[in-house]
Amino acid sequence: MKESFDQAHYDIKQEIQHYEHDLDHFWTALTGAVVLIMQLGFAFLEGGCVRYRNIQSIIIKVYANTAISIIMMWIVGYGLMMGKTNDTQFNGISGFSGFRFKDHPESYADFIFNSALAAAANSIVSGGAAERMSIPGYIALSALFSGFIYPICIHWAFRGWLYDMGYHDFAGSGAIHLTAGIGALVVTYMLRPRTNRFDPEFESQFKPANTTFICLSCLTLYMAWMCFNSGSTLALSNGSVFTVGNSIINTMVGGASGGLFVFFYHYFTNRNTENRFSLVMVCNGNLAGLVAVTGSNDEIEQWAAFIIGIVGGIIYILVAKILHKLEIDDPVDAIPIHAGCGLTGAMFPGWFDRKRGIYYEWGAYQWGVQVLGCVCFIAWSAAWHYVACRILEKLNLLRVEKTQDQEGLDPTVCGGHAFFYEPVREQDMKEYFSFQRDIQQFDQVKLNEIENDDRNLSIIKQADK
Amino acid sequence: MKESFDQAHYDIKQEIQHYEHDLDHFWTALTGAVVLIMQLGFAFLEGGCVRYRNIQSIIIKVYANTAISIIMMWIVGYGLMMGKTNDTQFNGISGFSGFRFKDHPESYADFIFNSALAAAANSIVSGGAAERMSIPGYIALSALFSGFIYPICIHWAFRGWLYDMGYHDFAGSGAIHLTAGIGALVVTYMLRPRTNRFDPEFESQFKPANTTFICLSCLTLYMAWMCFNSGSTLALSNGSVFTVGNSIINTMVGGASGGLFVFFYHYFTNRNTENRFSLVMVCNGNLAGLVAVTGSNDEIEQWAAFIIGIVGGIIYILVAKILHKLEIDDPVDAIPIHAGCGLTGAMFPGWFDRKRGIYYEWGAYQWGVQVLGCVCFIAWSAAWHYVACRILEKLNLLRVEKTQDQEGLDPTVCGGHAFFYEPVREQDMKEYFSFQRDIQQFDQVKLNEIENDDRNLSIIKQADK
Amino acid sequence: MKESFDQAHYDIKQEIQHYEHDLDHFWTALTGAVVLIMQLGFAFLEGGCVRYRNIQSIIIKVYANTAISIIMMWIVGYGLMMGKTNDTQFNGISGFSGFRFKDHPESYADFIFNSALAAAANSIVSGGAAERMSIPGYIALSALFSGFIYPICIHWAFRGWLYDMGYHDFAGSGAIHLTAGIGALVVTYMLRPRTNRFDPEFESQFKPANTTFICLSCLTLYMAWMCFNSGSTLALSNGSVFTVGNSIINTMVGGASGGLFVFFYHYFTNRNTENRFSLVMVCNGNLAGLVAVTGSNDEIEQWAAFIIGIVGGIIYILVAKILHKLEIDDPVDAIPIHAGCGLTGAMFPGWFDRKRGIYYEWGAYQWGVQVLGCVCFIAWSAAWHYVACRILEKLNLLRVEKTQDQEGLDPTVCGGHAFFYEPVREQDMKEYFSFQRDIQQFDQVKLNEIENDDRNLSIIKQADK
Repeated sequence: MKESFDQAHYDIKQEIQHYEHDLDHFWTALTGAVVLIMQLGFAFLEGGCVRYRNIQSIIIKVYANTAISIIMMWIVGYGLMMGKTNDTQFNGISGFSGFRFKDHPESYADFIFNSALAAAANSIVSGGAAERMSIPGYIALSALFSGFIYPICIHWAFRGWLYDMGYHDFAGSGAIHLTAGIGALVVTYMLRPRTNRFDPEFESQFKPANTTFICLSCLTLYMAWMCFNSGSTLALSNGSVFTVGNSIINTMVGGASGGLFVFFYHYFTNRNTENRFSLVMVCNGNLAGLVAVTGSNDEIEQWAAFIIGIVGGIIYILVAKILHKLEIDDPVDAIPIHAGCGLTGAMFPGWFDRKRGIYYEWGAYQWGVQVLGCVCFIAWSAAWHYVACRILEKLNLLRVEKTQDQEGLDPTVCGGHAFFYEPVREQDMKEYFSFQRDIQQFDQVKLNEIENDDRNLSIIKQADK
Repeated sequence: MKESFDQAHYDIKQEIQHYEHDLDHFWTALTGAVVLIMQLGFAFLEGGCVRYRNIQSIIIKVYANTAISIIMMWIVGYGLMMGKTNDTQFNGISGFSGFRFKDHPESYADFIFNSALAAAANSIVSGGAAERMSIPGYIALSALFSGFIYPICIHWAFRGWLYDMGYHDFAGSGAIHLTAGIGALVVTYMLRPRTNRFDPEFESQFKPANTTFICLSCLTLYMAWMCFNSGSTLALSNGSVFTVGNSIINTMVGGASGGLFVFFYHYFTNRNTENRFSLVMVCNGNLAGLVAVTGSNDEIEQWAAFIIGIVGGIIYILVAKILHKLEIDDPVDAIPIHAGCGLTGAMFPGWFDRKRGIYYEWGAYQWGVQVLGCVCFIAWSAAWHYVACRILEKLNLLRVEKTQDQEGLDPTVCGGHAFFYEPVREQDMKEYFSFQRDIQQFDQVKLNEIENDDRNLSIIKQADK
Repeated sequence: MKESFDQAHYDIKQEIQHYEHDLDHFWTALTGAVVLIMQLGFAFLEGGCVRYRNIQSIIIKVYANTAISIIMMWIVGYGLMMGKTNDTQFNGISGFSGFRFKDHPESYADFIFNSALAAAANSIVSGGAAERMSIPGYIALSALFSGFIYPICIHWAFRGWLYDMGYHDFAGSGAIHLTAGIGALVVTYMLRPRTNRFDPEFESQFKPANTTFICLSCLTLYMAWMCFNSGSTLALSNGSVFTVGNSIINTMVGGASGGLFVFFYHYFTNRNTENRFSLVMVCNGNLAGLVAVTGSNDEIEQWAAFIIGIVGGIIYILVAKILHKLEIDDPVDAIPIHAGCGLTGAMFPGWFDRKRGIYYEWGAYQWGVQVLGCVCFIAWSAAWHYVACRILEKLNLLRVEKTQDQEGLDPTVCGGHAFFYEPVREQDMKEYFSFQRDIQQFDQVKLNEIENDDRNLSIIKQADK
């Protein structure tokens, strides 16, 4: 009797543990799948920020890096990322790669989640490459990034020596956004600005081509970010579901306060101009808040998320200003948002984390480790991106030719512009072009003058004969 | 032995209950996160319905209200919504607000779900504000709505005195859509129509600027609506999963029958025109069906969802006609869809609910309560929106200036139009503008006549000298 | 004691089984709901591939078929699909339809998943109908497809005689994509090409109108496809979660390798042209890989998914070339992707499935069954589509009138073009049209010559008088 009871008890315990495991695995796989929609977000964010003549080219870069990240993670990146824990702490070169997955079904979900994140990080770098980096060069760089540069940082932060020191970066403000943002900075610096970018005469040409794309992007990212942050628990059972909940609320609040802060800041500094309400600024502020809250959203309270969102917004505004002053041309604001707010966000676990932060009187050790981690990510990412850009420069694969730069990559190497507007029936044209007649009227004033001069002249000439 | 057995039995029971709880919490948090994508839907629905000159301005309103709703719900709205049950029935002013969340992890998921819904409701009101409401005025109104007007209705319907009387409105046809739709009605009425809106000469100017935005929106909303309705179970365990399933099927069926009915109705009434197949009508019909089925989808059968979708479609068509006749200018059809179909949808639990409805011989009590609830929502929402609009009017924050109205808010206060079309190379321009030469040919007839007259006149004048 | 223990043990076992069931049901319902977003994908894929003049018309078709598929599945399709197993193997005519759902709550989730798939399959057929099929004709065809043609194939493959023979097509490369792709082939063949389609002079007119729509679509489909494939387990518990994980990874890898292969192939064959990097090709390659991996992703290893993606890419390129040579006009590449790669994908369970494939030395029986299944799907789908097109032709509901064909369906029957561009203020127009003056300059050369000739002539004439 006792034995059969113990046996039954044990069996049921086992069965329940299976469910725990099923739930955790399912949660990680599902959020990983949803995170892939962030690629849609990045494609349209960057497609909306560049000029009309480069929409296709930048979307091609994001689409290609999605595929490349998955393949590179599978072949080599995931192995490096996992490492052989307790063996080599520097990197995970000895770990298993995707070829040996069949022996490790328990890693399926983790791979899905991590390769979706790798693709997102890769897209951040592509922001620096917008409009003027050669497509083959970018593809080579994105393979290097997702196969080597990025996985090493993830290994350090979530499994390696930094992790052992207590580095805490819940969903990766530092390990993901800072690493990728520094990549964008180096790439954009090495590429030099787009032609005429800082010539005041051409200012208006560099306005985002399509702000609706940017909105489409940021609302998609907002939703996906909640899955990305909360999925970073990699678990639902044993109380993790409350971390999931807290993480989603903090993501909501941090994104909202960042967006509102930047929106109102822009309003107050531009309140007498025709540019006082800015869709792009509320979107970028939202992203800035989201990046800033990414590192610490598991264990902070909501008031902290609110403050972090605002700090993210401030950092975004500041860094964007500095870059503009230094004439570093960052077409999609990848550097202020991901490098700037990523670095900031990685500090917050040292400040507001209920189990680690200075605010809760845990001392400054955690904060020190966070700083150390960020220094390493910056150095590692900057060094490799610099080397890669140098090599690409030698191979003439860094910057596109001058004509492609000026005319845009879409018509010169991507088969034409991204979209067309072509009404075909007279009455539609008529309706559509009624406004053109209006413009012609006021253009006509000058034209008429010139024409009349010419005409009078020729008539006089004719009459003279 | 007996004790250890009882203890083990109790432990396992506890453990299983934890899983129940984990599952329920997870489900509510996940559907809440997905519901936030409805903001993308509303942004593009409204962006597609307005004129080109106001696309950015209305998307800014939706984006801002997303952030505002989250912050207001966190600071005050959720406290009002929760209330201190059994204490104050009027509202929940004494309940805890977001600042005290850390003591209530079991409320995390509920907050996520409810603040995503609050943002959606807020976007409905913004439909009435399209194209002519001042942006600061709208922002103030949306803070009032999400922090006070809306949470009180939710409290009444799901926790307060209406709930105690048996009011049943599963995912909120009445408490959410009607409340917000009445807000849109009052706002749009107080704002008065857009300039020239009901002047037949300008009819064609007010066509939706971008029907693809509307389709993008409605298919996104359709998907999110299934999560929104089924997430309203707030649970998966103990049989709730069947309610989830039934709810999703009814949402699918009600949306589909609404869309098809309005599409075919439009076809039969316009079958001899060039406007016989309408993308906008199938989209709006779909939304109408979805709103109508929102109140009752948990406990009705599929045939009822089918009928409800069609009734929703009829109400949409009727109310839209009446508004047009009364010259109430509702740019995005928010009033017929959300107020009209919301009111209708709140009636159906009284008719077709298997556990409450007249059809199943449960008597008319339920229906009476539903009517009472709707009267309260209408009165409450109308009164506050009226007061708010009056105050905004006094502060000159209601309607934009005349020039902004005519030229659009995008170029006058939002920094320019939403997107550009600007080919840069001669051959692309050539290709693109080949059709322009065609139109110029037929315009040229008149222009040539005038020019020839002018020219002849001037030549004669010259010759006269 | 023994009894109470047995009873308690039994109760707990039951309770745990309820959770298994809840989890499985939930998973199927959720993935079904997410799969509906594929309709957004198909709407924008087809809207982006057609000419500007037909964007609304094709999106209307996709939107309408979404609603029709749901209604038809509910009324008759799901009954046919389920069948009365072991009774009639040919089809499920005797099964229950949606009207009897209330007695079968355990089928709710299965219905949601299957009707979302039916809508997706229906959209594939609509690709063949693009730009030139009459809308009423298409609606009739889509009702037939979702109510009869498609459910029978699903019955055969997943419940009927093919299933009994061992046919294995995990998420439906054959039963879904091939069946629908053959429908698209027959429809497009019966419709004959669009006017001037294969006239080299008009080549450039038939470029996709909007490549950003195509990207929006394909990234949405990529994400949804992971839910679609992994949801096909219809279960999470008892180890199914590993199948879910494996399936998602294979979907990721297959889609990625397909996209990259086609992208690089296009680059190498066009490397000296201005069309060497193609967004459309990376998108279509991605889809080709996804379709090819759909049939076998549950039980293959990742290297096989990688190869399958590439094979899908090759098949796509080949079939598209052959169709172009045969002058079969497939505006959205539905035939190479869904028929071509669908047929290919249905073969792979016979080759690389770890439990059935030739590669794992299980012999060729499985492959034989797969071939037999595909022959049946092709014959069944082709025959019914041919009959349906013939009848529609007789009723004059197949191809639109010549003027509608040339001018596009949007302005002639859908109430106007899909979107407008209409700046309203002088300075915006000025900015926007500055580039127009440039083009006018080079056009002016010719115009001036003509005008000068005319003017000189008239002056001379005047002077002569």
